[in-house]
Amino acid sequence: MSYQIKQIAAFLDLEYQGDGSRLLNRVSNWETADGDSLVFLDSGGSVDPESVPLQAGCIIAPRDLAPDNMNVVFSTQPKLDFARASSYLYPWPAGRGRRHPTAVVSKTAKIEEDVDLGPFAVVGADAKIGKGSIIYAGSIIERECCLGRKCIVHPGVVLYPGSQLGDRVILHAGVVVGGDGFGYVSDGESRVKFPQVGSVILEDDVEVGCNTTIDRGSLGTTRIRKGAKIDNLVQIAHNVDIGRNVVIASQTGISGSTIIEDDAVIGGQVGFGDHVRVQKGVVIGSKAGVLPGKIVRSGEVYWGVPVRPLREYKRLNAHFSKLPEMKAEIDTLKKKVSRLQAVLRKK
Amino acid sequence: MSYQIKQIAAFLDLEYQGDGSRLLNRVSNWETADGDSLVFLDSGGSVDPESVPLQAGCIIAPRDLAPDNMNVVFSTQPKLDFARASSYLYPWPAGRGRRHPTAVVSKTAKIEEDVDLGPFAVVGADAKIGKGSIIYAGSIIERECCLGRKCIVHPGVVLYPGSQLGDRVILHAGVVVGGDGFGYVSDGESRVKFPQVGSVILEDDVEVGCNTTIDRGSLGTTRIRKGAKIDNLVQIAHNVDIGRNVVIASQTGISGSTIIEDDAVIGGQVGFGDHVRVQKGVVIGSKAGVLPGKIVRSGEVYWGVPVRPLREYKRLNAHFSKLPEMKAEIDTLKKKVSRLQAVLRKK
Amino acid sequence: MSYQIKQIAAFLDLEYQGDGSRLLNRVSNWETADGDSLVFLDSGGSVDPESVPLQAGCIIAPRDLAPDNMNVVFSTQPKLDFARASSYLYPWPAGRGRRHPTAVVSKTAKIEEDVDLGPFAVVGADAKIGKGSIIYAGSIIERECCLGRKCIVHPGVVLYPGSQLGDRVILHAGVVVGGDGFGYVSDGESRVKFPQVGSVILEDDVEVGCNTTIDRGSLGTTRIRKGAKIDNLVQIAHNVDIGRNVVIASQTGISGSTIIEDDAVIGGQVGFGDHVRVQKGVVIGSKAGVLPGKIVRSGEVYWGVPVRPLREYKRLNAHFSKLPEMKAEIDTLKKKVSRLQAVLRKK
Repeated sequence: MSYQIKQIAAFLDLEYQGDGSRLLNRVSNWETADGDSLVFLDSGGSVDPESVPLQAGCIIAPRDLAPDNMNVVFSTQPKLDFARASSYLYPWPAGRGRRHPTAVVSKTAKIEEDVDLGPFAVVGADAKIGKGSIIYAGSIIERECCLGRKCIVHPGVVLYPGSQLGDRVILHAGVVVGGDGFGYVSDGESRVKFPQVGSVILEDDVEVGCNTTIDRGSLGTTRIRKGAKIDNLVQIAHNVDIGRNVVIASQTGISGSTIIEDDAVIGGQVGFGDHVRVQKGVVIGSKAGVLPGKIVRSGEVYWGVPVRPLREYKRLNAHFSKLPEMKAEIDTLKKKVSRLQAVLRKK
Repeated sequence: MSYQIKQIAAFLDLEYQGDGSRLLNRVSNWETADGDSLVFLDSGGSVDPESVPLQAGCIIAPRDLAPDNMNVVFSTQPKLDFARASSYLYPWPAGRGRRHPTAVVSKTAKIEEDVDLGPFAVVGADAKIGKGSIIYAGSIIERECCLGRKCIVHPGVVLYPGSQLGDRVILHAGVVVGGDGFGYVSDGESRVKFPQVGSVILEDDVEVGCNTTIDRGSLGTTRIRKGAKIDNLVQIAHNVDIGRNVVIASQTGISGSTIIEDDAVIGGQVGFGDHVRVQKGVVIGSKAGVLPGKIVRSGEVYWGVPVRPLREYKRLNAHFSKLPEMKAEIDTLKKKVSRLQAVLRKK
Repeated sequence: MSYQIKQIAAFLDLEYQGDGSRLLNRVSNWETADGDSLVFLDSGGSVDPESVPLQAGCIIAPRDLAPDNMNVVFSTQPKLDFARASSYLYPWPAGRGRRHPTAVVSKTAKIEEDVDLGPFAVVGADAKIGKGSIIYAGSIIERECCLGRKCIVHPGVVLYPGSQLGDRVILHAGVVVGGDGFGYVSDGESRVKFPQVGSVILEDDVEVGCNTTIDRGSLGTTRIRKGAKIDNLVQIAHNVDIGRNVVIASQTGISGSTIIEDDAVIGGQVGFGDHVRVQKGVVIGSKAGVLPGKIVRSGEVYWGVPVRPLREYKRLNAHFSKLPEMKAEIDTLKKKVSRLQAVLRKK
C-alpha cells in the first residue's frame, strides 16, 4: 500500500517535519532505501546519521537525531513506531473468499465468508474456519479443527484432528499442531503407547515459526496463550502451557507438562525437562538446560546447564577459565608446604 | 468405541468391583473425567484418592488405593493397564480401501486391499503398500518404497525412493525418510558429494514423531529396529542402526554410522558423534553429548558433555558450583603459607 | 547408467589394471559389492585388503594397496575419485519437460524448457524456473520466486514469495526457504512484529537437508553462498550470510545477522548468537555455542560453550575432570598448614 507521510504520522499519533504529502510504499534498511521507503534511526543503533546517504523517503527518529533537511517522523521509540508503521504499510493479509478449485473441503466443514483456500488445501469433516482466514497451498486442516478469524496458515502446515486456533494466529510453513505426544509404558518386553487423546489450543495472536511441532495433550490440554511468539523448529510437548506474550527462540525443546508463565523470554536451543515451571517474566539464555520439576523464579536472567542466575553463571565460568592457574597455585602451595615441613623438621 | 467395564476387565485379564455393565467410551485425566471415562490411579501419582471428585465412570487402581464406592478395575500396574485399556477403547485405525479421487497412484504400484489414500496422496512407480495401511492427505510415497501392513502415515510425510517400512509403522506429520545423508569430499576447491545411494529400513512397530528426519545409508543401510520409538524433530543420519525398543526423545541428533543397541533410552537434545556404539539398555540424559567413536557401556545412566556416568557427573557439578569457595580457600592458604614463611625466615 | 571401467578411468583421468571393458552400474560398500559395483579402498580406511572377499567389479585404490588379481583404478585420493566416479555412474537428474497434469502453474509463471513438475506441485504468479530443474510432488513455489537451471526441489518443499535460487541448488524434502524472521518489539503490553520483508538468496550449488528452515531477511538479505552445504533440521535466521563452501551439520542454529565466512566447517547442534562473525576456514565442533557479537578468528578449531580453541577446551576439561582431586589436595594442604601453624605456635 502507499501512504502519505502525514497519514503515517497520524496513524502513529506523532509529529513530523518535511513534505507530509510524499507517498511511501515500503519499509527498508538504510542500504536499500530510496525515495519510497521509510527507515528508522535509533539512538542505540549502528547507523551514523552524519554519514549515511540520505536517500530515504522518510525517517522515524528521535528529535535530537533527526537531520534537518529530511522528512522525519519524530519518535521517542523509533524501532517500535517503525514496526507499527510497517503494519500500516503492509496491512494484515485478508482473505477474500477465493477458493482454489483443487482445494478439498468436507461437506460438513463450516467455512465462514472471506476465507481463502489455496491449491491442494484440505479441510476435513466438521472443521470450522473463521472469517477472513487464509489457508495456503497444501495445508491440511484435519477433521474437527477450529480456526478463528483472520488466521494465516502458510503452505504445508498440518493440523491434527480437533486442533483449536484463536483469531489472527499465524502458522508458518511446515508447522505441525496436534501430533501425538511422546509417551510409552514398558510392559517389560515392548513399549505400550500411552493414550495421546487430549487437545491443543493456540489462542489469539500466536505466531509459530517454520517446521515447529506442537503436540496435543496426552489426556489434558496443550495451550499456547494469547500473543505468544514461537520461532522455527521448536518442540512443544504434550500438556505444556505457554503464557501470554512469551517469546521462544529457535530449536528450543519443552518437555511434557512444563509451564512457562506470561512474558517469559526463552533463547534458542534451550531444553526444558518435564513439569518445569518458569515464572512470569523470566529470561533464559540460549542453550540453557532446566532440570525436570524445577521452578525457575521471577526476577532473574538465567543461563547455563543446569540453569543458574546469570551473575552466578558468569562467576563460575570465570573461575572455570582459570582452572589451570588454580591447579598451578595448588602445586606451588604443595611445594612451599613441603619445604616448610622440611625446615621445621630440621629445627 | 464403547465397552462395558466387564469387557475391559476381561481384555486386561483383571478383576473389578462395581457396575460391570456400565459403558465407557474414552480415557481421560481426573480433571475432565465424567461417567463415560476411564481414569487411573497410581501409587506414585499426584492424585489424592481421598480428595478427588469421583466423577469417573471407572478407575484402574491398586486394590489398596481403590475407593469403596466406585467402579474399579484392580491392577498392580495401573498406568500400564490404563495404556492397554486405551488401545482397546481406541482401536488401531484400520484402512478400509477408501481412495480419495485426487490421490495419484502409479500404475505399477501394488496397493493391497483395505488401504486408505487421502486427498493428494502420491504413490510412485513400483511402490508397495500392505493391507490395511492408511496414507493421509498430502503424503508422498516415492517409487519403489515398500510399506507393510497397517502402517499409518500422517499428512505431509515424504518417503524417498526405496524406503522400507515394516508392519504397524506410524509416521507422524512431516516426517522425512530416506533423504540423502550428509557427506562430501573436498577436492581442494569445492565439496564433491559422496554417494548417498544406500537403503533405509524401519522395522515393525516403529513410531516416528513429527518433522523427524531419517536419512538413507550412504552405501549401506540405515535401520530402525522393531518397536523403537522416536520423538519429534530428531535427526538420524546415514548408516545409523537403532536397536529394538529404543526410545529417543525430541531434537536428539545421531551422526553417521552410530549404533544404539536394544532398549536404550535417550533423552532430548542429545548429540551423538559418528561411529558411536551405545550398548544395550543404556540411559542417556537430555542435552548430553557423545564424542565420535565412543563406546557407552551398559549398566549406567549417563549425563553431560562429554557423557559421564551420572554419579560422576553429579560429583563434578557439585565441585563446579563450589569453584569460588575453592579459589577462596587457595587464596587463604597462600596467605597463611606466606605468613608461615615469614615467621620461619625470622627465626 | 552403465560404464566400462576404461570409461570411468578416462573420466577420472587415471590409469587402471584388469578388464577395462567390464561394465559397472553402481557404487557400493564392500559388504554389498558384486560384479557390477565399484568400491574404494583407502589407506586410512577400515577395510583390510588382504581379508576382504574380492567380489567387487572394480576397486579404486592406491597402487600400493591394489590387489594383483582385480580390476583396479589407481588413485592417490580414492575417496574423492570414488565420489567423482559416482557422479558419473549416477548422473545429475535432468528434467525433461514432464509436467504432471495435477501441477498448478500460474499463467504468469515463466517455466523454461525441460522443467519437470511433479503431482500437486504449485508454481505461483511471476515465478521463474530455469531449464532442466525438477520440482517434485507437493512442493510449493510461491509467487515471484526465481530458480536457476538444473535445480532439484524434493517433495514437500516450500519457497516463500520472492525466494531466489541459483543453478544446481538441491533442496531436500520439507525445506522451507524465506519464512519470516523472528523479530518483535515490545510495546509494554504485547509483541509488535518487526517487518520481515527482506530477501533470501541461495547461490549456485547449494544443498540443503531435510526440514531445514532458512528465513528471509528482515529488511536486508539472507544469503547462502556458492557451494555451501547444509544438513537436516538446521535453522538459519534473518540476515545471516553463509560463505562459499561452508559445511553446516544437522540441528545447528544460526541467529540473525551472523556471518560465516568461506570454507568454515560447523558441527551439529552448534548455536550462534546474533551478529557473530566466523572467519574463513574456521572449524567449530558439535554442540558448541558462540556468544552474540563474537568474532571467531581463523586458524583454529573451536569447541565448547562458549567456544574456545580446542587445545584450551581440552585442557580445561582435563582440569574439570580432576576437580575432586583438586579439592582433596586443598583439604590436605589445609590440614598440613594448620599443623605447621600449631607447631610454630608451640615453638
